[in-house]
Amino acid sequence: MTCKIAIIGASGYTGAELLRLTATHPDIEIAALAANSKAGQTIAQVFPFLRHLDLPPLVPWEDVDFSRIDLCFCALPHKTSQEVISKLPTHLKIVDLSADFRLRDPADYEKWYGTPHAAVQMQKEAVYGLTEFYRDDIRDARLVAGTGCNAATGQYMLRPLIEDRVIGLGDIILDLKCAVSGAGRSLKENLLHAELSEGVNAYAVGGTHRHLGEFDQEFSALAGEEVRVQFTPHLIPANRGILATGYVSGDAQAVHGALSRAYADEPFLEVLPFGETPSTHHVRGSNLCHIGVTGDRIPGRAIVVAALDNLTKGSSGQALQNANLMLGLEETTGLLLAPCFP
Amino acid sequence: MTCKIAIIGASGYTGAELLRLTATHPDIEIAALAANSKAGQTIAQVFPFLRHLDLPPLVPWEDVDFSRIDLCFCALPHKTSQEVISKLPTHLKIVDLSADFRLRDPADYEKWYGTPHAAVQMQKEAVYGLTEFYRDDIRDARLVAGTGCNAATGQYMLRPLIEDRVIGLGDIILDLKCAVSGAGRSLKENLLHAELSEGVNAYAVGGTHRHLGEFDQEFSALAGEEVRVQFTPHLIPANRGILATGYVSGDAQAVHGALSRAYADEPFLEVLPFGETPSTHHVRGSNLCHIGVTGDRIPGRAIVVAALDNLTKGSSGQALQNANLMLGLEETTGLLLAPCFP
Amino acid sequence: MTCKIAIIGASGYTGAELLRLTATHPDIEIAALAANSKAGQTIAQVFPFLRHLDLPPLVPWEDVDFSRIDLCFCALPHKTSQEVISKLPTHLKIVDLSADFRLRDPADYEKWYGTPHAAVQMQKEAVYGLTEFYRDDIRDARLVAGTGCNAATGQYMLRPLIEDRVIGLGDIILDLKCAVSGAGRSLKENLLHAELSEGVNAYAVGGTHRHLGEFDQEFSALAGEEVRVQFTPHLIPANRGILATGYVSGDAQAVHGALSRAYADEPFLEVLPFGETPSTHHVRGSNLCHIGVTGDRIPGRAIVVAALDNLTKGSSGQALQNANLMLGLEETTGLLLAPCFP
Amino acid sequence: MTCKIAIIGASGYTGAELLRLTATHPDIEIAALAANSKAGQTIAQVFPFLRHLDLPPLVPWEDVDFSRIDLCFCALPHKTSQEVISKLPTHLKIVDLSADFRLRDPADYEKWYGTPHAAVQMQKEAVYGLTEFYRDDIRDARLVAGTGCNAATGQYMLRPLIEDRVIGLGDIILDLKCAVSGAGRSLKENLLHAELSEGVNAYAVGGTHRHLGEFDQEFSALAGEEVRVQFTPHLIPANRGILATGYVSGDAQAVHGALSRAYADEPFLEVLPFGETPSTHHVRGSNLCHIGVTGDRIPGRAIVVAALDNLTKGSSGQALQNANLMLGLEETTGLLLAPCFP
Repeated sequence: MTCKIAIIGASGYTGAELLRLTATHPDIEIAALAANSKAGQTIAQVFPFLRHLDLPPLVPWEDVDFSRIDLCFCALPHKTSQEVISKLPTHLKIVDLSADFRLRDPADYEKWYGTPHAAVQMQKEAVYGLTEFYRDDIRDARLVAGTGCNAATGQYMLRPLIEDRVIGLGDIILDLKCAVSGAGRSLKENLLHAELSEGVNAYAVGGTHRHLGEFDQEFSALAGEEVRVQFTPHLIPANRGILATGYVSGDAQAVHGALSRAYADEPFLEVLPFGETPSTHHVRGSNLCHIGVTGDRIPGRAIVVAALDNLTKGSSGQALQNANLMLGLEETTGLLLAPCFP
Repeated sequence: MTCKIAIIGASGYTGAELLRLTATHPDIEIAALAANSKAGQTIAQVFPFLRHLDLPPLVPWEDVDFSRIDLCFCALPHKTSQEVISKLPTHLKIVDLSADFRLRDPADYEKWYGTPHAAVQMQKEAVYGLTEFYRDDIRDARLVAGTGCNAATGQYMLRPLIEDRVIGLGDIILDLKCAVSGAGRSLKENLLHAELSEGVNAYAVGGTHRHLGEFDQEFSALAGEEVRVQFTPHLIPANRGILATGYVSGDAQAVHGALSRAYADEPFLEVLPFGETPSTHHVRGSNLCHIGVTGDRIPGRAIVVAALDNLTKGSSGQALQNANLMLGLEETTGLLLAPCFP
Repeated sequence: MTCKIAIIGASGYTGAELLRLTATHPDIEIAALAANSKAGQTIAQVFPFLRHLDLPPLVPWEDVDFSRIDLCFCALPHKTSQEVISKLPTHLKIVDLSADFRLRDPADYEKWYGTPHAAVQMQKEAVYGLTEFYRDDIRDARLVAGTGCNAATGQYMLRPLIEDRVIGLGDIILDLKCAVSGAGRSLKENLLHAELSEGVNAYAVGGTHRHLGEFDQEFSALAGEEVRVQFTPHLIPANRGILATGYVSGDAQAVHGALSRAYADEPFLEVLPFGETPSTHHVRGSNLCHIGVTGDRIPGRAIVVAALDNLTKGSSGQALQNANLMLGLEETTGLLLAPCFP
Repeated sequence: MTCKIAIIGASGYTGAELLRLTATHPDIEIAALAANSKAGQTIAQVFPFLRHLDLPPLVPWEDVDFSRIDLCFCALPHKTSQEVISKLPTHLKIVDLSADFRLRDPADYEKWYGTPHAAVQMQKEAVYGLTEFYRDDIRDARLVAGTGCNAATGQYMLRPLIEDRVIGLGDIILDLKCAVSGAGRSLKENLLHAELSEGVNAYAVGGTHRHLGEFDQEFSALAGEEVRVQFTPHLIPANRGILATGYVSGDAQAVHGALSRAYADEPFLEVLPFGETPSTHHVRGSNLCHIGVTGDRIPGRAIVVAALDNLTKGSSGQALQNANLMLGLEETTGLLLAPCFP
C-alpha cells in the first residue's frame, strides 16, 4: 500500500532532503508540496535537481487537501511551525522538523526560544524523535518532534555513556563542527560562499545555542539528576556534516563498550573499532552515524567523536525513519543509500 | 535472479562509485573485489564510507575465482586494463572503465596513448559504451568499453546536432569544466586541496587531451566525414561534475529541437526549456545529464551547455547502466537515485 | 606628501579590497569611509579583518567633509554611483568602480543598463580606467571609470591581438570562469556556500552580460570597425579569480608575439612562455595578470588564457593603480604584494 | 643595509610563504634558494605565483655559498633539518622552521620524534621562537627554533592564563581546527582535494600529536609544575588557518583581563572585546592572531578562541619576525600586510 505524504516548508534544505529521500521511496507518494514564500513555483524552479521527477507544484499550505494525506512533514521555522501544526486536521500524522515540539516543558521552550509556546497541549503529547531511543512511542505517535541536528549527534555519542554511568556527569564538553546547510537556506552575509569558504569560526559560544535545551532535558532525564554539558558549535566550510568531539572523564574502553553494546543491532549506528576516528566525508548523503572512541594520554580521560550528515540522520533522514515507523512500514525503507564519496 | 559481479581496480574513485551504486542494487551481488595495490585490506580500510556493508576484502585480481562471476567491472588504468582483460576467462561479461577499448582503430589507440595496443582482437570486438547510442549492441556484447567522462558529456551535447546537421561541422568549440575526481585517486601536487581549491586552470590545452580520440572517431563516423572539434578542459575546485559549454554555428531553436527529439524518451537525459542553463550542482551523485540551449546575440550562433556527474553518468553509472543491459536487467535498475543537493 | 582619500561604498568586497591595499600604502591616508547601509558601524564590525587598524568609522557619504580629501574612490552599485558622484565637489579626483562611467555613449549605457544616464556630461569626460592603455589620460583625469572585472581580463588578452590584427575579428569566443566575489556582497541564494560550492554553472548566456558593452566599445574603437565577441561567463566555487579562455583564429606564435611585445615593459602583466597556461591560483591577492598562448591541433587556431584576481587587478587594485597616477605617485606603489599561495 | 638571506627547503608551503614575505621586504635580499628534491628548477616552475620576481633558481643546499649570507631559513622536514643545520658554517644566523630544535631536553625529542637527536649541542643552545615571549633571547641568538603552528596558537591563548594563574591547570582542553597547508606539500590520499574538501575529521586523537611536546615543555616551565593539556587537532577543508578552542576553568573576565594585559603592546596580537569570537577568515595571509574570551553558562568555565594563519603567524611570518630581530631590523618590517578577505 502506498502512503500519501505532504511536505510543508518544502523549499528549504531539509525540504529538499525530504524530497530526495521520499522521491525514490517505494511505499510513499508525494501528494502535496507547500511553501508559502515560493507558492506558485514548480519544483524545477525551486529545486532544479529534481526537475526530472513528476512532482506537484508548490502551493500555500492552506490550499492543501489534507483529507487524502496520511502523513505530513513540517519543515518550517520554529514558531511558524506550531502555528501551522495546531491548525492541521487531527487525523493527520505529523513529523515536525522544527524546534517547536522538542522540549516537553513549556517553561523550557520559553527560556530557549524567547516566546511562550502557542500550542502547549500538542507540545505535551509530542514524542521526541530520536528514533533509536523512542522507537515504540514513535510507532504510536500522532506528532513526532524531530531533534536538532547537533542535539542528535551529541546524544548518539553520550546517551549510552550517561545511562551506563561510565563517564562523569559534571565535566562533559562537546565541541561540534557543523556544515553550513544546518543554518538553512537563509540569506545572511556569513553564509555566503565568499565569507564562509576557506575558514572556520565558533558561534553561539558560552552555552547559548538552543540545542542545549534538548541536551539538558534528555541527559537529565536519563541520569535522574540535572546534567549540564558545555557545548560549542563551529561553522566549517562544507555543505553537509556534523563532527562532534566529546571530551569526557571515564575509562575509554568502558566508554567504547557501552556504545558498542547500545548500538549492536542498530542499522544506522556504527561504532568503529577502538582507537579509530570517524569523518564526515564517510557519511555524506547517508542516514549513518559513525562513532569512534579513543583514550587520552591523560589517564581517565576519553575522547568520543561522532559523525553524521546533518540533513539526513540529523534531520530529514531521521524524519523519514520516524515516518516509516508511524506508517507501519519497515523502518529502514528508502534510507539504505550508501554515502556519496568522494 | 541475482547476478554476481566482480570489480577489478576497486580502490579508486570509479571503483568507489561502482560500489556505492551496486551495493544497494536489488539484483546484483558483489562477489569479489580486486585491487592489487591494496590487496589484503578490508573495505573499511580503503573506503570507510562503506564500512557498514558486508563486502568481500580486496584481493589480487589473479586470486578471484571468476567461474562464479557473471560480469566483471574493470576500473584499472589504461594499458594495465588490456593486459588484465586479455587474461580473463571468456565466459565473463566485462565492462571496462579504462580507455583501452574505446578506440576501434589500433592506429588511433597508438596515436593517443603512445603505445601499441596489446589486445587488438578484443579491441575490435568491444562495443563503445555510450548507452543511449549503442544500446542494442551493448545488450549482446561481451566487452563494453566505458567512454571517457569528458567524451560522454561532449557527445550527449553534440551527437544529435551532428546527426541532424543543424550545426556547422567546421567550427565546434567545447570548453569543459571538470571536477577533480576525474583525475582519479592519483597523488599529484596539483590535486592536493591546498593547490586545487579556490582556483581554476586549463590543462591539456591545444587539442592534446586523449578524449579527443573518441570525439574524432564518433563524430566523424556520425557525419560521414572527418570532424575535428576544439576541446579545452579546465580543472575546477569541486569533487564531482563536468560542465561542458559548446559554441556552435546554427539556429539555436533547431539545435534545441534536435536535442529535445533525440532524448524525448531517455530516462537520464533532460533537455531544459529553451534559454535555461544547467548546473553541475543539480546532477551530483545521480545518473542524470542536463542539457540547455541558448541563442547568442550574434545571429546564427548557439551555446549548448551540458552537466553531468563524471563519476556517475560519466563513468560508473554509465558502466552499471550497460551492465544492466548485458545482464538482461531493467536498464535503470539501481540508477534512479535523486541528486544530492545541497 | 601624504594624500588623503575617502572611500564611498566601503562595506562591500571592492571596498574591503581598497581598504586592504590602501591601509598599508605609504603615501595614502584613509581620511573618511562612507557606507550608508552600515553607517554608524566601526570597521571592526563590518570588516573584522581590519580591526587592528585605526580607521575612521562608517558614515553616510553626505556627512563626509570632502574639503580635506584629495581623491575619492566610489565603490557603489551602478546608478547609485552616478547620482552620488554628480553631487561631489568639483575639486575632488574620483575613481569610480561602478559601471556608470565606462561607456562613453549614453545610448550604449541605456541599452546595457536599462535606464538613461543621469549624468551625461560627466560620463563624457570620464576616462576609461584600463591603466596600461589609457595611462596618459588617467594621469590628467578628474574622473576615472574602473573597468568591469571580466572586461579587464578579456581586454588584456585581446587588445594587442586586435590592434596588431593577428587574429580574425569575426569569430572571437571568450569563455570566462569567475569567482564569486565578482558578484559582490549580495544576499542571493545562488551565492550561498551551500549552493555555490562544489559545482559550476554558466550565467548570462547568449550575449547578455553587461560587460559586453565595454568589449564592443573598446574593441570596435581599436579595430576601426564593429567587433562583436561571444562571451559566456561561468560561476566557479572560489572567492577570487577570473580565468578567461579565448578561442581565436590566427597564428599562435604571432598571437604570442603580439602579447609579449605589448606587455614587455608592464609591471603587472606577465606573458608566459609559449605553450604554458596560467592559473588563478597564482595571482590571488595580487595585481598581476598572467597570460598564456597555445596553438591548437587545428591549424590556424589559437587558445589564449588569462588569469587575474577580480578584486585586485580586476577592480580595486586597478583603482589604486589609477589613483596613484592621478595623485602623481609612482604607479605601482602599494601594489607590489606577491600573490597568496597556497 | 640590505641583509642577504638563503632559504633551504624552499619548495614547500612554508618556503613559499617565506618567499612571499621576504620578496617584498625592503631590507632583505634573497640570495640563494635550495631545495634538493627540485634542484635545477626555476621558481617559475616550482612556484608560478612568483614568476614575476627575479629570484635565484633552486640548487642543492650543498651548493650554496654561505659566505655571503647573513641568515638562513631552514624549511626542511625534521630530522633532515638537524643534519643539514649541523653542517652549516658557524657565522650564519639560522631560523629553523622544523621541529628539530623546539624541545630543549634530548629525551623529550626522542620521546616525541622517535629517534635520538643528532645535534644535541645545538639543540641546547637553540632559542624557542615564540617571539613575544622570547624576544630578548631571540635578538641575540644564532639559532632560533620556530614553534609548531598548533603550539603557537595554543600558547598565545594559554600562556598569560597559566602565568597569571587565572585558570585551573588540571583540566585544560584544546580543540584545534587546522587548515591543510599545515600538513605541508605531502602527497597523501587524505590531503587530496577529493578526500579533504567538504568534510572534517579529527586526527592524532588521544594526546599523540607531537606539538604536545612543546605544550608540555613550555606550560610546565611557566607553571613551575608539570602541566599536561588535552589536545585534539581536526583537519578542516581550508588552505590556511588554525582556530583553537580552549575550554578552561576560571573566571572569564579574569581570563580576558590577563590576555588583554599581556598583549596590550603587541603589534600582532589582538584581544577582542569580551564575548566576541574570532574567525580564521579574518587573519588569512597576515601575521595577526585574534583571541576572544567568553564565559560559559556553567559558572567558573570560560571558552577562549584563538585564530591565526598557520603559514604566517604560525610559521613563516613568525620566522621572519624572528629574523628581523636577529638582523637588527625593526621587528614588524615586511609583516604589516593586511589579511586577505574575502
